[in-house]
Amino acid sequence: MPPHPDLPEPAHPDVDSMLTRKFGREIANYFSGSPINRFSFLRADHGFISKALVHPSTSFLLFNNLAPLAKDPTALAYAKYEDVQGLIGGNPFEKTEEELIKQYNSTITLPVVLFLGLDERKKEGFEHGDYKGAPYFAVDVTPRGTVEKEATAVIEEMTKRGPQFIEGRMHMTLNAPEAAIYAQARALLDWNARNPFCAGCGQPTLSVHAGTKRVCPPTDFASLPAATQGDATTVEVKPNERAACVTRTGISNLSFPRTDPTVIMAVVSHDMKRFLLGRQKRWPPHWYSTLAGFCEPGESVEEAVRREVWEESGVHVGRVLIHSTQPWPYPANLMIGAIGQAIPDGEKIHLEHDPELEDAKWFDFDEVREGLRAGTSGLGEPAPEGYVEGNLRLPPPTAIANQLLRAVVSGFLESGELSKI
Amino acid sequence: MPPHPDLPEPAHPDVDSMLTRKFGREIANYFSGSPINRFSFLRADHGFISKALVHPSTSFLLFNNLAPLAKDPTALAYAKYEDVQGLIGGNPFEKTEEELIKQYNSTITLPVVLFLGLDERKKEGFEHGDYKGAPYFAVDVTPRGTVEKEATAVIEEMTKRGPQFIEGRMHMTLNAPEAAIYAQARALLDWNARNPFCAGCGQPTLSVHAGTKRVCPPTDFASLPAATQGDATTVEVKPNERAACVTRTGISNLSFPRTDPTVIMAVVSHDMKRFLLGRQKRWPPHWYSTLAGFCEPGESVEEAVRREVWEESGVHVGRVLIHSTQPWPYPANLMIGAIGQAIPDGEKIHLEHDPELEDAKWFDFDEVREGLRAGTSGLGEPAPEGYVEGNLRLPPPTAIANQLLRAVVSGFLESGELSKI
Ligand SMILES: [Zn+2]
Ligand SMILES: [Zn+2]
Repeated sequence: MPPHPDLPEPAHPDVDSMLTRKFGREIANYFSGSPINRFSFLRADHGFISKALVHPSTSFLLFNNLAPLAKDPTALAYAKYEDVQGLIGGNPFEKTEEELIKQYNSTITLPVVLFLGLDERKKEGFEHGDYKGAPYFAVDVTPRGTVEKEATAVIEEMTKRGPQFIEGRMHMTLNAPEAAIYAQARALLDWNARNPFCAGCGQPTLSVHAGTKRVCPPTDFASLPAATQGDATTVEVKPNERAACVTRTGISNLSFPRTDPTVIMAVVSHDMKRFLLGRQKRWPPHWYSTLAGFCEPGESVEEAVRREVWEESGVHVGRVLIHSTQPWPYPANLMIGAIGQAIPDGEKIHLEHDPELEDAKWFDFDEVREGLRAGTSGLGEPAPEGYVEGNLRLPPPTAIANQLLRAVVSGFLESGELSKI
Repeated sequence: MPPHPDLPEPAHPDVDSMLTRKFGREIANYFSGSPINRFSFLRADHGFISKALVHPSTSFLLFNNLAPLAKDPTALAYAKYEDVQGLIGGNPFEKTEEELIKQYNSTITLPVVLFLGLDERKKEGFEHGDYKGAPYFAVDVTPRGTVEKEATAVIEEMTKRGPQFIEGRMHMTLNAPEAAIYAQARALLDWNARNPFCAGCGQPTLSVHAGTKRVCPPTDFASLPAATQGDATTVEVKPNERAACVTRTGISNLSFPRTDPTVIMAVVSHDMKRFLLGRQKRWPPHWYSTLAGFCEPGESVEEAVRREVWEESGVHVGRVLIHSTQPWPYPANLMIGAIGQAIPDGEKIHLEHDPELEDAKWFDFDEVREGLRAGTSGLGEPAPEGYVEGNLRLPPPTAIANQLLRAVVSGFLESGELSKI
């Protein structure tokens, strides 16, 4: 089967490499394959971020309650600096992070302005030393707090021009490069929106590092009269001291975005002729997929695969091989795709440990091959044309479940190649 | 090279499997390979947990400020139910989670009592339906809040008998099966200790699911007179309503333990004759390791490998292959071990993007082979006997960095086997 047109090209096809010859071409799953270089080390450099923010080549991706602004379901729409200037207060990166923390006032709403990186394919325009490319930002335009009016104005102006905020949980219709940009932006804006308070001390936090870090400031100007600007006689107002917090001493993971590692696995029978697939009650008839679950603390991916498969289906898995991974921004998962082989006497299905699945079953490779050929679609979509009622239905090529099954039925087990598709 | 004796045996050696024949034996890294079945689906079953808690075959692992109780640096020590009964208040699982949430009082300290699972190798003793094995729990005995006195008493009694709480950040001297049990316990107790407040609303949270979930209760009996037990004339006291919280509607990842996926990668030159290794300033002279970094939101593991290598060393990586994984409980990482190959013109080292490393260098396979043979030790330890000053020093076999290098120099690139060691 040829690679699906919806899948991103691997960033480095690298066809001449020994690793590729031995193990096959790398799979770039949907939501990965971003054209953007994140330049993560420049996020705290407020001079760089300020320059990028106002450059004419800069694009702003807007989210209203996590719904992205888009031209249509296949393409994002972008705003320019002038469109968001009123909402984000001119240049929120004018001051250093140290100054922003000192001036923290929990009663003022600061919309998250997230630096995504530079699209280096667009070499003309923005330059910073040796780095060149078109900057990308994302802005949370959800009307809230002290900027409700300004946010509403941005939403009205942008939608008047045609683009709309696409509601709905999944956005799997976007073209592959923009899907990856969207995934980065959505995951980080959601993390900021979901974590307004410090889990270590319960006090409100402040977004820094251009949207990729939240700190717990030691002081707060809330409920104090603001110093009058330009008034030479102003008495200096001292902020309130806040309670101590452990995240202020040393580096705490609480300050950084959360990503939940998840295992998803194509389990094959010991004779490697059948797949173990499962289904949830709410899925359409005949729809099955690979088993999946969260990786737990103090557990390797290989152990998580064996535990989840046994808990959900009763099947005992031996050897586990990791195939490829997929970012999944609903809200913050990293899907780690694996292939596992059942042990000789471990193939009996038992659904009564963890009753999460409505059914789990062994399917012959041929049934799965037919499902991949004529039974794939998005979960909410009707079966495709050519589908024969009663046959197996499966997730679309944009899902890593599909890619794992595809790799196995396309012969990776025989060739020793991990990603022959 | 033979597998290191400190490494756990793979849970399922499964030597007869086609996956093993094609891709080699699975590596079980240190901190994985746990002998305990977690039975994650029974954590909310308070009847099951209550029975397991008080069974004579049950073992309690104790942590004081995250330091584990141990006989010596190689072996944990365990308490029995009678030893912790006074601290944990008899049976904290007597009531259902629903009841516990209703009775929530934020002024009462409830020490975290964590169900780890059953060691099914010990079939005699505890039984629950078809499930058999010796139960394991971990208890946070750090003296704090309203149980300070009871916690101190447990610490004094247990250490009087000989075992001590082993301080220090790393506990890599523990035997392999106990290291995996310790990793699970430490990661989860640390997560509970680090997250006393709800990041969604700032209010204190309650540990449920036998230590593996934290919920944000809708009410609080704090500062209210407690109802007098057994007094028929008691007027029913109503708890205070707390502010609304988004984590109470639907499932929120904020309620569940956090694990941070991290990439760690053996990067080989395009001709596959040299390794890219880096060093931090605070490391001893001649000590190098593989590069590593956090996987970010909206990023695949393969992309994170390429980004981190480029940001830290300037080298451009093409094909990435995932080799094996390792839980790393300091505090909550999942190390995803990969092998990456540099692209033909991408091997020039440039340390000035993200100045995180003091140095990065290409090393011939022979230098690395010699380092693995005679230059490995823990980071704080002296070089081993037989080490020749000036030669390469490397992390020990308990580190996944060592296993990745070992796999490559032992011929996996030639054989097509992922984990030939
Ligand atoms: Zn705090
Ligand atoms: Zn809450």
